[in-house]
Amino acid sequence: MYRSHTCGELRAENIGATVTVAGWVQTIRDKGNILWVDLRDRYGIVQIVGETGVVSDEVMEQLKGMGREFVIQVEGEVIERYQKNPEMETGDIEIKATAVTLLNASITPPFTIEDETDGGEEIRMKYRYLDLRRNPVQEKLKLRHKVSLETRKYLDTVDFMEVETPYLIKSTPEGARDFVVPSRMNPGQFYALPQSPQTFKQLLMVSGYDRYYQIVKCFRDEDLRADRQPEFTQIDCEMAFVEQEDVLNTFEGLIKHLFKTCRNHEFDGDFPRMTYAEAMERYGSDKPDIRFGMEFVNLNSVAQGKGFGVFDNAELVVAINAKGCANYSRKQLDALVNWVKRPQIGALGMIYCKCNEDGTFKSSVDKFFDQDALAEWATAAGAEKGDLILVLSGETNKVRSQMNELRLHMGTELGLRDPNAFAPLWVLDFPLLEWDEESERYHAMHHPFTSPKKEDFDLIDTEPGKVRANAYDLAMNGVELGGGSIRIHNKELQARMFELLGFSDEEAKAQFGFLMNAFEYGAPPHGGLAFGFDRLVATMGGSDSIRDYIAFPKNNSGRDVMIDSPAPLGTEQYEELYLESTAKEETAE
Amino acid sequence: MYRSHTCGELRAENIGATVTVAGWVQTIRDKGNILWVDLRDRYGIVQIVGETGVVSDEVMEQLKGMGREFVIQVEGEVIERYQKNPEMETGDIEIKATAVTLLNASITPPFTIEDETDGGEEIRMKYRYLDLRRNPVQEKLKLRHKVSLETRKYLDTVDFMEVETPYLIKSTPEGARDFVVPSRMNPGQFYALPQSPQTFKQLLMVSGYDRYYQIVKCFRDEDLRADRQPEFTQIDCEMAFVEQEDVLNTFEGLIKHLFKTCRNHEFDGDFPRMTYAEAMERYGSDKPDIRFGMEFVNLNSVAQGKGFGVFDNAELVVAINAKGCANYSRKQLDALVNWVKRPQIGALGMIYCKCNEDGTFKSSVDKFFDQDALAEWATAAGAEKGDLILVLSGETNKVRSQMNELRLHMGTELGLRDPNAFAPLWVLDFPLLEWDEESERYHAMHHPFTSPKKEDFDLIDTEPGKVRANAYDLAMNGVELGGGSIRIHNKELQARMFELLGFSDEEAKAQFGFLMNAFEYGAPPHGGLAFGFDRLVATMGGSDSIRDYIAFPKNNSGRDVMIDSPAPLGTEQYEELYLESTAKEETAE
Repeated sequence: MYRSHTCGELRAENIGATVTVAGWVQTIRDKGNILWVDLRDRYGIVQIVGETGVVSDEVMEQLKGMGREFVIQVEGEVIERYQKNPEMETGDIEIKATAVTLLNASITPPFTIEDETDGGEEIRMKYRYLDLRRNPVQEKLKLRHKVSLETRKYLDTVDFMEVETPYLIKSTPEGARDFVVPSRMNPGQFYALPQSPQTFKQLLMVSGYDRYYQIVKCFRDEDLRADRQPEFTQIDCEMAFVEQEDVLNTFEGLIKHLFKTCRNHEFDGDFPRMTYAEAMERYGSDKPDIRFGMEFVNLNSVAQGKGFGVFDNAELVVAINAKGCANYSRKQLDALVNWVKRPQIGALGMIYCKCNEDGTFKSSVDKFFDQDALAEWATAAGAEKGDLILVLSGETNKVRSQMNELRLHMGTELGLRDPNAFAPLWVLDFPLLEWDEESERYHAMHHPFTSPKKEDFDLIDTEPGKVRANAYDLAMNGVELGGGSIRIHNKELQARMFELLGFSDEEAKAQFGFLMNAFEYGAPPHGGLAFGFDRLVATMGGSDSIRDYIAFPKNNSGRDVMIDSPAPLGTEQYEELYLESTAKEETAE
Repeated sequence: MYRSHTCGELRAENIGATVTVAGWVQTIRDKGNILWVDLRDRYGIVQIVGETGVVSDEVMEQLKGMGREFVIQVEGEVIERYQKNPEMETGDIEIKATAVTLLNASITPPFTIEDETDGGEEIRMKYRYLDLRRNPVQEKLKLRHKVSLETRKYLDTVDFMEVETPYLIKSTPEGARDFVVPSRMNPGQFYALPQSPQTFKQLLMVSGYDRYYQIVKCFRDEDLRADRQPEFTQIDCEMAFVEQEDVLNTFEGLIKHLFKTCRNHEFDGDFPRMTYAEAMERYGSDKPDIRFGMEFVNLNSVAQGKGFGVFDNAELVVAINAKGCANYSRKQLDALVNWVKRPQIGALGMIYCKCNEDGTFKSSVDKFFDQDALAEWATAAGAEKGDLILVLSGETNKVRSQMNELRLHMGTELGLRDPNAFAPLWVLDFPLLEWDEESERYHAMHHPFTSPKKEDFDLIDTEPGKVRANAYDLAMNGVELGGGSIRIHNKELQARMFELLGFSDEEAKAQFGFLMNAFEYGAPPHGGLAFGFDRLVATMGGSDSIRDYIAFPKNNSGRDVMIDSPAPLGTEQYEELYLESTAKEETAE
C-alpha cells in the first residue's frame, strides 16, 4: 500500500499520528518560507504543509518542485491547523511533511480540474479522463453506483433474480434500427445487439423464473437527438402471476427505496396516478411535469364564435395562465411568439391576454374580443390581476404538444421546476394502438405483446383506436423514467392482435416465432416494466442531461472522441467477414 | 395477484388456511376417486388433492382435465397430509382444492421437465426456455444471481465503485479477434465490442476513481473450443496506489466471502501461493489442481544414461505415481497409452512401471531397466507396493503439458477431484514475455502494460525471456478463475516495454495512443484483476461446464439455436450500412 490513510479521512482525533497519503496535487500556495499543498483523491482533500526549518530542506525543495496534477506520496505528522477550515471535512488538521515521493509528474492539463472548469464541452469530451477527475463528475458517477447497488439490494429482497440475457441476438426488421454484428464463423450472417431484452424476459417468465431483473446495456441505431446515446442502460424487470396493480406497487416501492437511500428523500404517501387521456387533456403530455400547475384550460366555448377565424377553425383553443406575468414587455412577448414558432415547436402563432392591475385586459386580438369577452377568458383560466394568459389553437394533438412545450418553457422561466423537488406520476391506460398515417395501418403503441383492457375487448372489432392497454409509464418532473405493460398470454388474443397490426401468420412467425412457440408450452400471466437507468439517475441528480451521468459518453454523431471511434477497418478484417465497403472512406491498414 | 402463497412456502402452521397458489402441473396421480397434482413454481412444489365427494364435481373434473406443464391457479384449504413426505419442504401439508382456474394449457413438451430429463443436448438447447424450467438448471442460475449480488455487496464495503464502460469501442488489430459493428452514421467506419474493459479501467485509475469494478459482458471472436462462448462475463477490477500484495489480499477476501455466503464453505487460513516456475515444475500447469497430490517427479538422474534412447535424448523424463494402480490390466494400460497419444495430448508414447505387491517391478521398458534401476524410479517417485508409475519424456514444455493432462485424467479416474472440495492457489511471478516462434519476437504474456519485477530490471536488456512480471492468477481445482497484474505507470519503462515487444513509436501510438496520452497527466501506480464470472460460478457449483451456468448459451459454432441467430441481413440493411456481402449465403427478404 502506498498510503495509510486516504486524503478524505483524517480528523482532529488523528493529530499526532504519523501517516502516509497519496494523491494528486490540487493546488500549491507558496509563500516562500512556508507552503501548502492541497492533495486530492476520490475521498477528499488534505492539506500538506512545509516550512523552512521545520521540515527538511530536501522535503521543502521537493514540495516546491511539484505542479498541478502531479501524483505524490507524502509521509508526515498530522498536526492541528492554525486556521481551521470548517468547509472542509479535513479542515481541522494538516500534515507536516517528513518525506515526499514523486510517483508521477503531469504535463499541464488542457483545462482546470476544478468544480467550475474553464474547459469547453468539446475539449472535456476529448480528455474525458481528466474531466472525470472533477468533483461534480465524480459525484454523479458515485450516485449512479449507489443507485445501481440499491436497485439490486431492493429487488433481491422481493425475490427478483438477476439473469443475464445475450448481447449477440437476432435482427428484426420491424421497430427501431438494430446495430448488427457480422459473424465470421457464419459467413453472410449477422447478429444484432439488443434494443431491449423484451423477448428474453418473457421467455424467462415462460421458464418459471417468476421475477426477473437485469441492469443491462441496450442499443439503438437511431439518428441521435441531443442527449440520446446509441448505447444506454436499462433496469429491465418482469414478473409472473401479476396484474397491473402488483407491478405498480412493486416498482413504486423500488423508486421510494432508491430516493430514500440515495437522496435521503421521502415521498408523502402513494404516487399520484392519472390516465393517459387525462394527462393529455390537462398537460398535453404523457409525462407531465406536475411540480407546478399552469394546467391547460379549454377556451373553445368562450373563444370560438366571435369572428376570429383562427380560433373558429381550430379543433382546440387552449390556454395556460402565467401567474404574475402581465408585466411582460413587448420584447418578451415577441420572444415567446418566436419561441413557439420555431420549427421544433411548430405553432403558427400565439395569442396573449394581459390581465392588467387596473382590471382591464390587453390582448393581441382586441379587434375580435372586447373587455367582456376577455374577462370570460380570465374567468375560465382562473387568471387574476397581474396574470398573463397564453393561448394556442389548432388541431388537438398538435396544439397540445405545442402547449406542453410552452408550459414547460414558462415553468422553467418562472423557476417553478426545482431540480431538488421530485414529482412522480403513474400514467395509466395508454392506448393499445396508434394509427400511422404513412403506412395507413395501426401500430402497437408499446409492442405487439401488450394486452388490451378487458373492458375494452368489444371495441377491438369496432373501434380499435379506442382500445386502452394495460400499459403504464412512470413520469417524474416531465421525464419518462420507465414504462411497461401486462403482456398477452392467451394465444387467440395474440393472434387477433397480430391481425390488427396487419401481420400475416408468416410474418408473425418469422419475427416472433420462438416466443410464440414458447407460448404453446404453458405461459403464465405476466407483465413488467423497464426504467431508463441513465435518465433515472440524472433525474435523481436533479439534471436534465444524461450524458453527465455516463462515464464515457458518445457525442451527437455517435462518436467517442476520446478513443476516436468508430474507425475504419483493415482490409484483412473485411475479408475475414466476407464484406466489402461501398463507402468512400478508405480502409485502414 | 394470482396467488396468496408461492408453491414452496406452505408449512404445517398454515393448516386450516384458505390459500391460492399458481404454477405449472408437474405430475398428476389419478386413482379414480382421488387424485393428486404436484404444482410447481420457482419456489417449490406443493401437492393439490381432489377427492370425489370431498371437493365439488366441477373441481374434480377440472383437475382430471389438466396435463403436464399446464398453468393453473388453485384455491383451497391447507390440510395435514395423511402420509407426510419428509423429502419435500411442503411435505407436511396438501391443498384441498375448492376452485381451479386454467390459466394456460400446454402442448406436450419435447422432453420431460424433471431433474433427470430424457432430452438430449441439442433439443434442450433449441427449447432452452423449457430446459430452464428444470430444477438443476434453476439452481445454477440462482447461484449465479447470488454470486453476482454478493460480489457487489462485498466490493461496495471495501470502497469499490461500479462504473459502466462502453460496449461500442474501437477495434485494435493486435491480440484476439474483435467482433465489429458497422456504423451507419459514420459510413465505412466500425465500432468494436470490447474483449475486456482493460484500457477503460486503467483510464479510470488515471481519473482518480481509486477502486473500480464492473460485472461486464466481454466479446471474443475466436474459433470456439468446447465450453468457450463468444460472449462471456467478467468481474473486472482495478485499484490505485496498490502493490501486488494489496490486490491479492483484497480479492482473496472477495473469494472467501463468496464461498461463505453462497456455498457455506469456509477456507482454512490463507490461500496457498506458488510461483509460476514451481507450478510448472511440480504440476506442468499454471493452474494446477491441488485437490490431490500425484506431483511430478523428475526422473532424469535415475532414468537417463541406461541406453534407452527415448529417455537419453529427452530434455525431461518425468513421472507421476498413481497410488494403488499396479493392478491395471494390459487393456487399461493400453487405453492410457492411446489416451496420451491422441492429437489433443500429443505424446509419442508412455512408459509405465508397476510396483507389484511381491516387491518386484514390471515395466514396459524391462529391456533397458533392471529391477534395481526400476527400484530407483520407485524411490524417486515415492511409489510403494501396489503403485503404478507413469512416465513421459521429451522437450520440457511439451512433456510438462502432456503430463499435466495425464495427471488430471488419472485424478478424475481415481476419484481424487471431489467437486465439493475447493483448492485455491495463487500462482505468482509469471514471465513478462513469451517468445513467439512464428513471428520470431517476444509477446506480452498478459498485455503490454504489465510491469516487470523490480529485481529483474537488469535482465530486461540481457535476458528478456527470464524477466518475471508482477502478474498473478488465482487457480482453483485446475481452473483459472482470474488473473491480473500491477501495471506500468512509468513512461520510460512503458516505452522500453513497447520496444521489447517490437512496436515502433507510431504503432504504439496508433494502438494505445489515448491511454499513453492519459499517462502524461499524472497516472497513479495501479493494478488489478479480472475473474471469469461464468467459470467462477461453474467452479463454485462444482461443475466443469460453463454453459450450464449461462441462461441462453450459444453452441460451438457460436449459434443460438433457439432464436436461430446469427441470420442473413436484408438488402436494405446492407445498403444503409454501406456494405456488400461476398459470402455465397443469400440475403434475406
